[in-house]
Amino acid sequence: MLQDKNPSKTDLSQLGEFGLIESLTKDIIINNASTLKGIGDDAAVLNFANQNTLISTDLLIEGIHFDLAYFPLKHLGYKSAIVNFSDIYAMNGKPTQLIVGLAVSNRFPLEALQEIYDGIKLACNIYKVDLIGGDTTSSRSGLILAPTVVGKVTPGKEVYRSGAQPGDLIVVTGDLGAAYMGLLVLQRENETFKANPQHQPDLTPYAYVVERQLKPEARKDIPPLLKKLNIQPGAMIDISDGLSSEIMHITRQSGVGAIIYANKIPIDPQTVLTAEEFNISELTAALNGGEDYELLFTIKQKDYDKIKHRKEFAVIGHITEEKGNYLITPANEKLQLKAQGWNALKT
Amino acid sequence: MLQDKNPSKTDLSQLGEFGLIESLTKDIIINNASTLKGIGDDAAVLNFANQNTLISTDLLIEGIHFDLAYFPLKHLGYKSAIVNFSDIYAMNGKPTQLIVGLAVSNRFPLEALQEIYDGIKLACNIYKVDLIGGDTTSSRSGLILAPTVVGKVTPGKEVYRSGAQPGDLIVVTGDLGAAYMGLLVLQRENETFKANPQHQPDLTPYAYVVERQLKPEARKDIPPLLKKLNIQPGAMIDISDGLSSEIMHITRQSGVGAIIYANKIPIDPQTVLTAEEFNISELTAALNGGEDYELLFTIKQKDYDKIKHRKEFAVIGHITEEKGNYLITPANEKLQLKAQGWNALKT
Repeated sequence: MLQDKNPSKTDLSQLGEFGLIESLTKDIIINNASTLKGIGDDAAVLNFANQNTLISTDLLIEGIHFDLAYFPLKHLGYKSAIVNFSDIYAMNGKPTQLIVGLAVSNRFPLEALQEIYDGIKLACNIYKVDLIGGDTTSSRSGLILAPTVVGKVTPGKEVYRSGAQPGDLIVVTGDLGAAYMGLLVLQRENETFKANPQHQPDLTPYAYVVERQLKPEARKDIPPLLKKLNIQPGAMIDISDGLSSEIMHITRQSGVGAIIYANKIPIDPQTVLTAEEFNISELTAALNGGEDYELLFTIKQKDYDKIKHRKEFAVIGHITEEKGNYLITPANEKLQLKAQGWNALKT
Repeated sequence: MLQDKNPSKTDLSQLGEFGLIESLTKDIIINNASTLKGIGDDAAVLNFANQNTLISTDLLIEGIHFDLAYFPLKHLGYKSAIVNFSDIYAMNGKPTQLIVGLAVSNRFPLEALQEIYDGIKLACNIYKVDLIGGDTTSSRSGLILAPTVVGKVTPGKEVYRSGAQPGDLIVVTGDLGAAYMGLLVLQRENETFKANPQHQPDLTPYAYVVERQLKPEARKDIPPLLKKLNIQPGAMIDISDGLSSEIMHITRQSGVGAIIYANKIPIDPQTVLTAEEFNISELTAALNGGEDYELLFTIKQKDYDKIKHRKEFAVIGHITEEKGNYLITPANEKLQLKAQGWNALKT
């Protein structure tokens, strides 16, 4: 997939600042007219003319968000860009620039940094985002990726978390829970490998869930599709911490409640099979697993006909005037949703 | 100064995500019309109308850029904002928004995070910058501050590193080398304290150099002053890594050389005295110490009269057509400048 094993090792301390920057940034492509000046000065210079500017940051910290024992560096670079792009799509915008703070152990060779940058640049090329700057420094312990994404949106077309209204339908894109099951598979294989380094993992039966963990994609198709369908969502958020917690963000900021239906939540068959194998409920993975980077949004009931035949979307519930967030189980029980999402500060 | 010792300790893991964000962001003031939406959504929303947008990031990593043994958390928050603002002034712009990535050990109590945020918010209030978002997560080891600053500049008024021309004068603001001497004082006091915890340091004789290290300021006065004086610099950069390395950035990107005069470099008397005490040359501190956050820029000779009586500026040399960067010593020797600046990747 993205694997690129390179045996050569160049010591960062011999390279110097100029050499390092040159080496990491030499093949960067600028795709957006809004980028007037990219890498190479005290700041990048952008111009958004009649557009509003969006900005967001999401950190990836070794030992918290990833384990290098099973996370290839190029994938990590790719994912660090994707999770940031996702926040811009969640505003109904388009990501246009990325600036990357990176702290690495000085035991990392240049080639390791290049792999991370290769992943970042691949994501930027695919999503037509310009890599415009950053800060690369050393770290005493552990790898830290701190990208900040800039995007644009037509004024008035932004979608906040606060715009959900009673009666609105709750819609999700894609399927949920796979990234979490992929994480569990990778962690299990890593434990097996540590116990027996001869162990050759066969990840074929888990290809989809593992890819959702190691190489997630952001829903760049959704904002243009919503525009084409003439739908302006009421509220929107990306699903990075699990469906439960994201629904609670929307209802809290909108001053409303929500009811969702367990049997409406889209879950891939491989997620279900893997969850069975791990003896957990696939619903738990979908509600609390996180890292799916799908979009969750609300629409008016009158817009239902515009989406009902679209494979991208699933209607999973509706917004209520009464506060509180509930899940209706297949047995028709009504359970209160809890934000058991992956809370980085609890690890 | 900024010290704010608070004995109470609130466990982050008990607080939850909502509680933490609320606690850190409750008293944030928005000063800029360009901030349409700050903290609280997937991304902040900005509008710069007819201005160009500037963006930059500078990381501060525990054990590399600071040591918590002598760096109070509130100062650290303040400094993390200042070093980022400085990059925007170095473009001849004005910082307008800040977004802060923060990774802390979950052993940190809430009050420690609040101190960091108090420092960030103080800097934002003084510099009229809006704190518009961020990502706070845990870290396995060590504190990481990853702010990204956004600013604005009138199109055409940006000053790049690449605009220096032969014959231009080289100008610096303020004085150099003090922040580095402050660092040496703090490190020495810390060693003394470790050897003898009863030791009460008297930092009075070092007040200025220590303040330059612990509470630096960015030169927000310079872009408006240059405008008032009707000076458009050819090239400009902020002095974060030491004068030598910054001059080399300008000459390399401008395809020129430079000659600077040791006896023209502005150095505070306290820096000189402290350097003597540490038995190092104050010139070394000025050339290679870094963290002064003064501005270095070039102007046309015809503009000399506009600045010659201004206390903010010192002319330290000139740009040459012939490449190479040289220092003329007080003994009239011509030495080649080397970038021995503080290179984070070499630590």
